[in-house]
Amino acid sequence: ILLAMPLPLQANEELLRLGADPGQWPMQAKNYEATRYSELDQISARTVERMHVVWSFSTGALRGHEGGPLVIGSTMYVHSPFPNTIYALDLRQKPYTILWKYTPEQKPSAIAAACYDTVSRGVAYGMGKIFLGTLDGQLIALDAHTGNEVWKVKQGEIARGETITGAPIVIKDMVIIGISGGEFGVRGRINAYDIQTGKPRWVAYSQGPDDDILLEGDFNKECPRHGGEGEGTRSWPGEQWKLGGGTTWGWFSYDPDLDLFHYGTGNPGSWNTEVRKGGDNKWSCTLWGRRPGTGKARWAFQMTPWDSWGYDGTNELILVDLPIGNAKRKCAVHFDKNGFAYTLDRGTGEVLSAVPFVYENWAKGINRGDDRPIEVPEKRAKLGVDVKGVCPSSMGGKNQQPAAYDPETHLFYVGTNNLCMDIQAMEAKYNPGTPYVGADLLIYSGHEGRDKYYGEFIAWDPVKGRRVWEIQERFPVWSGALATAGGLVFYGTLDGWLKAVDARTGVLLWQQKLGSGIVGNPIAFLGPDNKEYIAVYSGVGGWFGLPAAVSLPKDDPRAAMGANGAADNSGLPQSTTPGGELVVFGLD
Amino acid sequence: ILLAMPLPLQANEELLRLGADPGQWPMQAKNYEATRYSELDQISARTVERMHVVWSFSTGALRGHEGGPLVIGSTMYVHSPFPNTIYALDLRQKPYTILWKYTPEQKPSAIAAACYDTVSRGVAYGMGKIFLGTLDGQLIALDAHTGNEVWKVKQGEIARGETITGAPIVIKDMVIIGISGGEFGVRGRINAYDIQTGKPRWVAYSQGPDDDILLEGDFNKECPRHGGEGEGTRSWPGEQWKLGGGTTWGWFSYDPDLDLFHYGTGNPGSWNTEVRKGGDNKWSCTLWGRRPGTGKARWAFQMTPWDSWGYDGTNELILVDLPIGNAKRKCAVHFDKNGFAYTLDRGTGEVLSAVPFVYENWAKGINRGDDRPIEVPEKRAKLGVDVKGVCPSSMGGKNQQPAAYDPETHLFYVGTNNLCMDIQAMEAKYNPGTPYVGADLLIYSGHEGRDKYYGEFIAWDPVKGRRVWEIQERFPVWSGALATAGGLVFYGTLDGWLKAVDARTGVLLWQQKLGSGIVGNPIAFLGPDNKEYIAVYSGVGGWFGLPAAVSLPKDDPRAAMGANGAADNSGLPQSTTPGGELVVFGLD
Ligand SMILES: O=C(O)c1cc(C(=O)O)c2c(n1)C(=O)C(=O)c1cc(C(=O)O)[nH]c1-2
Ligand SMILES: O=C(O)c1cc(C(=O)O)c2c(n1)C(=O)C(=O)c1cc(C(=O)O)[nH]c1-2
Repeated sequence: ILLAMPLPLQANEELLRLGADPGQWPMQAKNYEATRYSELDQISARTVERMHVVWSFSTGALRGHEGGPLVIGSTMYVHSPFPNTIYALDLRQKPYTILWKYTPEQKPSAIAAACYDTVSRGVAYGMGKIFLGTLDGQLIALDAHTGNEVWKVKQGEIARGETITGAPIVIKDMVIIGISGGEFGVRGRINAYDIQTGKPRWVAYSQGPDDDILLEGDFNKECPRHGGEGEGTRSWPGEQWKLGGGTTWGWFSYDPDLDLFHYGTGNPGSWNTEVRKGGDNKWSCTLWGRRPGTGKARWAFQMTPWDSWGYDGTNELILVDLPIGNAKRKCAVHFDKNGFAYTLDRGTGEVLSAVPFVYENWAKGINRGDDRPIEVPEKRAKLGVDVKGVCPSSMGGKNQQPAAYDPETHLFYVGTNNLCMDIQAMEAKYNPGTPYVGADLLIYSGHEGRDKYYGEFIAWDPVKGRRVWEIQERFPVWSGALATAGGLVFYGTLDGWLKAVDARTGVLLWQQKLGSGIVGNPIAFLGPDNKEYIAVYSGVGGWFGLPAAVSLPKDDPRAAMGANGAADNSGLPQSTTPGGELVVFGLD
Repeated sequence: ILLAMPLPLQANEELLRLGADPGQWPMQAKNYEATRYSELDQISARTVERMHVVWSFSTGALRGHEGGPLVIGSTMYVHSPFPNTIYALDLRQKPYTILWKYTPEQKPSAIAAACYDTVSRGVAYGMGKIFLGTLDGQLIALDAHTGNEVWKVKQGEIARGETITGAPIVIKDMVIIGISGGEFGVRGRINAYDIQTGKPRWVAYSQGPDDDILLEGDFNKECPRHGGEGEGTRSWPGEQWKLGGGTTWGWFSYDPDLDLFHYGTGNPGSWNTEVRKGGDNKWSCTLWGRRPGTGKARWAFQMTPWDSWGYDGTNELILVDLPIGNAKRKCAVHFDKNGFAYTLDRGTGEVLSAVPFVYENWAKGINRGDDRPIEVPEKRAKLGVDVKGVCPSSMGGKNQQPAAYDPETHLFYVGTNNLCMDIQAMEAKYNPGTPYVGADLLIYSGHEGRDKYYGEFIAWDPVKGRRVWEIQERFPVWSGALATAGGLVFYGTLDGWLKAVDARTGVLLWQQKLGSGIVGNPIAFLGPDNKEYIAVYSGVGGWFGLPAAVSLPKDDPRAAMGANGAADNSGLPQSTTPGGELVVFGLD
């Protein structure tokens, strides 16, 4: 079908059409709004008890399987963590035939540079092509029908520790991709490439001179308090912005009507605030609204100025229209690592609300005057001081696990981390391609270690700014959420349970333990047989899950940047085993 | 329960009791007779359509997952191919909790020595211990409750290419284990160790002086035509028996009443017959009945004298009592690589019948006078001649995939290979620890390549010596069979379908595609909830499956000893992906 249709001039059109088709799952977040909501309802609160595995597909890789597959027409695109193998599965012959398989040639040195696990958050589709970022920093375009390489570019320089773990997004006639490596002193940026040729279109840095960070003339016009021109250098001492982090390993969303796309930037580097003293370190830990055509920023809002905790701002912005006050506002909702849920005007960056969605103690709240956190000074990380009991931990109140929004219940569904930490900043010396962290972390459960559970799955009312229900989970919920018109919300646990809960009440309706822990994002789609299926990756890993995926020294709770101790205390390595497969569920 | 009972003096007693308990699966082949028959019938021809995955467990390894788990009491023991990790799963808390995990320290050089894939056919249980052979040649005893090492011994010398892939067996107060490496000039043998201490008890070589091969005084008394004393050296030129293969990588069975255990030895080395000229090369390609107490052979019967095809005799002997003529005979039934199904008197080695169970063309039959094959001279492999169209191939009419026997239908269920080959013998130079193969193989489908299918699953009437039904399969059926009192037979395919067929008719009643190809052996057991479950490993590999598990050069059909071309032509690498997990099925 896709082949027979004339290719649209801009990939948007096709993706918008596919995104609106309940049977398809054409981008990582289902649609440009990133709601991860499916209108399918065959699998419902009434029928889900009959749901079972109909097939599975091993990826041939171990380690954390983040992201999810895409479904375009009758083809499913499955990806793996390093070595980033991509499979195209034809679903017409049940359960599938492998149309093609592609494994990029890449530098194995990338493995060591992936300090949070060798994950990939998936591929993007557009104009008959599949786009993948490789761990060693390449962006590759494949013919979606044949798997043949169409073009490839070097987005990152692996010798400098530049990796790719985030998924690209296709907007207009471009593919946009970020970069990882904040812990290697990488200077964050996003790049746009011509979808047909791979020719560079623009690059927008997170910090540095205005020409590098690309500001619109009316940048932050409505919210001058969020900062203006020159701050990409001025808010840094000397030239520290060059090693400044602000990497871009999270998710993208896009509003074609406003002609703005949205994403967040990571924490500044190194974690030792001494070397970044004297300013906010803009634009690290920042949410953005940019024009896709030019890459220019219409607005930017820094959530965590002069970050000392590793509170990256890279979590997704979900675009929903909400009744705020008496008006329907075009909002972006964002659950930040720093523990606050932000509701913004997605056209201007105006902060409409900012309230904690998890337990936090580093800030008394967000000042409604200047939208800055009201910091608790004793909870700020310092050089040579082991600051105890900081909540949330550097893993965030939420990490990369994307939330879902259900337009029926008007609720967000969010996998969260219930984690606190002891944190000590340390001197770090920059040496290209080697770690430049500058922090020592001990991570444990929430409420300063008093809790017995390490995560929660919550339903969030964005208008009232409060939880509607919550499910305590033994482990951080590192998987994404999926909401469906069947009145169900799906999520996975680090020890491998896929769960379906009632969207209104959170009551558990169905669960099954898969081969390995779940850090991927469930999707829903219609097979060529017009039946609804749920698919999710099983394969433990990611930051918290790393100790369950690889062998780490037993006696070092600070290994893997604190994941080792946290995972050990939670019992994760005793509760699941490394694996890697896609599992597909249906009713019959 | 097990702990509370006084330990039996001989492990037999406990294993016999457990083997007779339909809820348990205490040894690889279910019972000493190796019938792989379960008396459970909850999952039946009537109910199987409701069967579905209830949980799965990733082993954290890729490559071929041969063998199966054990179920002792409420504990399941899962193993993996190299690195041979063992997991003990407590099934009382659904679906499981991991009691312990054990990964042996071993020499990674073992990987290169495993020319047929880094498989393990599983562990054995006895007297509160779990016994595992490691790929690098260690036999290790673990405390079944804690996973602590109790003792370990070096069974093989990895520097000489001695590996272990076969499962041990526990008999009396001993654990008995073989050795692999026929393609490295290893001299085959089996060793018995004291179950409590690991102290060596006896070692029985496959060839060499009588003192090494351990012959009873009444050796082959009833069948002197099968050979007698001195032939372990006399049937070889010079000292070639020292490099003579006859390795022992297959299965064991045991008859406590006759006080005999049974197994087979592999092909002689090297494959170049010139260096082994002048005799039968006894006792390669041989079936044995030995006394467990002393290791001494009561009988031995060589199926393929002066082998030139790699027709190892290592396939299992299944012990059943059959009406032969007018008498009920204590038989052993064996489906050999050479394409013939042998029914023997298991007390004496007398050949009761020997008929082809697959298409073969290397022998006109087995001479009833001397039980020797009536060879077709043009099909004998020769030095420097590429002999075309030899059937079966070196992969055998059947390989390691064990058959099952159903006492209700009186039928055997056998996964078979429908493969032929071109074979050319070559000079090989012995160099310890390096390949000593001496053959070049091109393997293709059956009937000299005319068939479109590469395997069959068959029901075999051992009394009539003929097939009752057969199912053509696209790929060799490299998984074991399981027959149950539910009237079902289970087997898996190399591309990952687990199938349940009607035991009487072969009609397909249920199937599901798992994450990776199946080369493991399905088992049936009762959970602590008294419900029947079926469990099987998914994880493609083994000789035929190796090209689907690892990357081999595309343009070399002779790579992996001919597996590369055969797998490629069959389409296997395009039909499944590497993986490794245990999948458990139930009715609700
Ligand atoms: O600063 C960076 O560039 C960077 C990269 C990544 C990544 O690429 O996955 C993570 C982080 N930071 C990070 O702070 C973090 O919490 C994190 C978690 C994960 C994960 O996949 O579980 N990745 C990352
Ligand atoms: O001669 C030997 O020692 C030896 C060992 C093995 C093994 O250890 O798996 C196999 C074979 N031979 C062999 O001939 C063979 O067909 C074979 C198949 C497989 C398998 O696991 O699929 N192993 C072996």
